[in-house]
Amino acid sequence: MTYCPLCHLTQEDKRWLLYGNEYWSVFLADKQDYVGRCLVMCNRHCDSLSKLRPEEWYSLKSIINALETMLSTELNATMFNWSCLMNDAYKYDPPCPHLHFHLRPRYKEMMHIGNITFLDHEFSHHYNNQAQAVMDDEALQNLFNTLHSKVDIYFTK
Amino acid sequence: MTYCPLCHLTQEDKRWLLYGNEYWSVFLADKQDYVGRCLVMCNRHCDSLSKLRPEEWYSLKSIINALETMLSTELNATMFNWSCLMNDAYKYDPPCPHLHFHLRPRYKEMMHIGNITFLDHEFSHHYNNQAQAVMDDEALQNLFNTLHSKVDIYFTK
Repeated sequence: MTYCPLCHLTQEDKRWLLYGNEYWSVFLADKQDYVGRCLVMCNRHCDSLSKLRPEEWYSLKSIINALETMLSTELNATMFNWSCLMNDAYKYDPPCPHLHFHLRPRYKEMMHIGNITFLDHEFSHHYNNQAQAVMDDEALQNLFNTLHSKVDIYFTK
Repeated sequence: MTYCPLCHLTQEDKRWLLYGNEYWSVFLADKQDYVGRCLVMCNRHCDSLSKLRPEEWYSLKSIINALETMLSTELNATMFNWSCLMNDAYKYDPPCPHLHFHLRPRYKEMMHIGNITFLDHEFSHHYNNQAQAVMDDEALQNLFNTLHSKVDIYFTK
């Protein structure tokens, strides 16, 4: 198998780990183009949705429930865009896709967090895949700290 | 509740229905910008992934498995982009989101079906949300007929 970076996460990669269980890891995305953007990664090297095992699929639903509830409650997200793409893995030959989801919270209203004011310019339209990050390192760290301190409320241990 | 068009599909809307069970309906998208593009719609009016019921979630996995297998085998799709967005529903106030997934098969190699030659120009990159349809009505009907004739092989009755 080709080297898979998601199977070999460094401590630096794990810096924004919000929650993990036996099957899944939830990271706050280091690029916060949509505030609260997360990545939900399968712990096992699995290359497609259809190859997920029943126990992974079952657990994924509890992760989705907890994340949507947390981000609605703590950030006042209006709704969520979920995608499972894995396109980047196919830039290599052979490809080495490792299943993960992108979660972009979307906001009808202007939202404020710390010193950041965020307006979801494309709300009710497809997310902008070229959107720029709206948070610097300090704001990202603050957002992480805020969400991480609430994880136990929403996720099962 | 605001009027939900997905709760009131017409016979014309159902023209491209490939498969349905108690919980889900699978349609060939009428806009074939990526050949084999499908829409997987929850039969019940459910507004978000976290509100899906356990039996719907369980059934969804079997739909995903069948669709990925069918499109890999019958169309030689390389991999799949799945998304669950519901942005359009938020153009209305109040919004009336009805849960559905977009499935775009992606192709590493040029693919041929009937008289159509399709090159996935963005392969290994994010899908182009503005891509134009590559099939006219006749080609769409032929693709539908081809896939519909194979549904029983891949989906449970």
